[in-house]
Amino acid sequence: MSMYPKQVRIVEVGARDGLQNEKTIVPTASKIELIDRLSACGLRSIEATSFVSPKWIPQLADATEVYTGIEKKSGVSYPVLVPNLQGYERARAVNVSEIAVFTAASEAFAQKNINASIDESIERFRPVIERAQADGIKVRGYVSTVLGCPYQGEVPVADVVRVAQRLHELGCYEISLGDTIGIGTPKKAQEMLAAVAAVVPMTSLAVHFHDTRGQALANILACLELGVSVIDSAVSGVGGCPYARGASGNVASEDVVYMLQGLGIETGIDLDRLIATGLWLSAQLGRETSSKVARAAA
Amino acid sequence: MSMYPKQVRIVEVGARDGLQNEKTIVPTASKIELIDRLSACGLRSIEATSFVSPKWIPQLADATEVYTGIEKKSGVSYPVLVPNLQGYERARAVNVSEIAVFTAASEAFAQKNINASIDESIERFRPVIERAQADGIKVRGYVSTVLGCPYQGEVPVADVVRVAQRLHELGCYEISLGDTIGIGTPKKAQEMLAAVAAVVPMTSLAVHFHDTRGQALANILACLELGVSVIDSAVSGVGGCPYARGASGNVASEDVVYMLQGLGIETGIDLDRLIATGLWLSAQLGRETSSKVARAAA
Repeated sequence: MSMYPKQVRIVEVGARDGLQNEKTIVPTASKIELIDRLSACGLRSIEATSFVSPKWIPQLADATEVYTGIEKKSGVSYPVLVPNLQGYERARAVNVSEIAVFTAASEAFAQKNINASIDESIERFRPVIERAQADGIKVRGYVSTVLGCPYQGEVPVADVVRVAQRLHELGCYEISLGDTIGIGTPKKAQEMLAAVAAVVPMTSLAVHFHDTRGQALANILACLELGVSVIDSAVSGVGGCPYARGASGNVASEDVVYMLQGLGIETGIDLDRLIATGLWLSAQLGRETSSKVARAAA
Repeated sequence: MSMYPKQVRIVEVGARDGLQNEKTIVPTASKIELIDRLSACGLRSIEATSFVSPKWIPQLADATEVYTGIEKKSGVSYPVLVPNLQGYERARAVNVSEIAVFTAASEAFAQKNINASIDESIERFRPVIERAQADGIKVRGYVSTVLGCPYQGEVPVADVVRVAQRLHELGCYEISLGDTIGIGTPKKAQEMLAAVAAVVPMTSLAVHFHDTRGQALANILACLELGVSVIDSAVSGVGGCPYARGASGNVASEDVVYMLQGLGIETGIDLDRLIATGLWLSAQLGRETSSKVARAAA
């Protein structure tokens, strides 16, 4: 029998990573309601929005309105994505307390997705991290394509390690390792996580799985066995990666929490309320929930 | 890192457990084509049909025609379900080489599903097993509701152990432990399997998960870690349990094989061909495949 962590923190990414990749544009008021419902479920980390240029991602053009509209619950963090100094200034203007920066482990993906080499992308957000640190704002780092890339295929584990270590050295308090195209399997996920954990403390790592091939929960289980205690997921399984074939997006928070409860791991989350929130969100998006736990409960 | 088995045998249950629980009645010729396609994928155990009374399960009234119609490939076993001596005679008449009998770990489920107590159900198929052994026919045993019951809720592990041990003593060469309503989580699955493996050799055990709450692959992974090397699954994830809420049925064989390949475990199965077979079957049923691997590949 394995050694699982006693507690896990879920980083709920539905409102940002999720909605940014949905075709349906959700009204600002509904985004605010979503985030407030999520905090009422007991979630302590809720990614709220992205201060990226509206030209790139029109779904999130209302970042300022969303962030200022949500009820800031005590003890809950509402990180926002920030791609550059302009975005940082907008985020700073609404008094965010946590930001997230992102890059890739795959050079080909970085070029296609953020139009820069990995090193250039890091140089681009290095001043963002420096400013945030000076301003007392926490910084989370995302590394995408950690188990495979739609353009270059295999991504060497050494590349994931190098990028994660760099983000850690630059001051990210937590690095989220993302299987952006949902291609990984449990042993490969463990090998990748173990390699990164050899240079960045496990307590500073999170895992982020998409369920494109149905492997997300098995991958999460395998990573829990190594001691990871932070998991990214999206209520109702919203989102997806526009570069990945197949409709499936983020692993559904409901299904993750159901598994964690069964493993006896504390999350502080009210599952019934989370299921209700996911079903409400699916109705907003006009599609069936991707959470099997929610479907079984409905 | 865990000790997985080097090889796993998949018991493909789509043609029986799957189609029996689908609303659409598949023509006999298509059932035969399905089974022949499955054997061409490299599957070595393909449950073909059930010699149950057509009054109970009209979907499988063509058992004799299906069994006599399929190409019996060398090295492939085609078990058929047999509920009683009448069914056994029909199966024997077409020269089956393997049969399966079934009962439950939950007393309430046995009463509702097979209209008998667990002990009565065992007494009912005891002469079937005796006849099969005298005739040189292998017998597989199914135990359902091993992780929970829709009627009585919790199912004590001791009840699963008792029933599995009984089937083993009666001469079943393999016992398939089924989470019929897809309610289990990995640690509970491990605890149940470990308890049964204390009295029945692990080499005589199989696991059978439904994906009702999305937990099937994680549960399978957890059981692989304990050394189980036989997994029941259904191509395209067909089927379901009429007693379980939510639409989800058997775990999809494609998703299981994808995971096993990623773990470096041999199955002898051609995944591309299996995906094609599942997509063909979904088209026959007029619904989308439940295999995420198939969706990602389509």
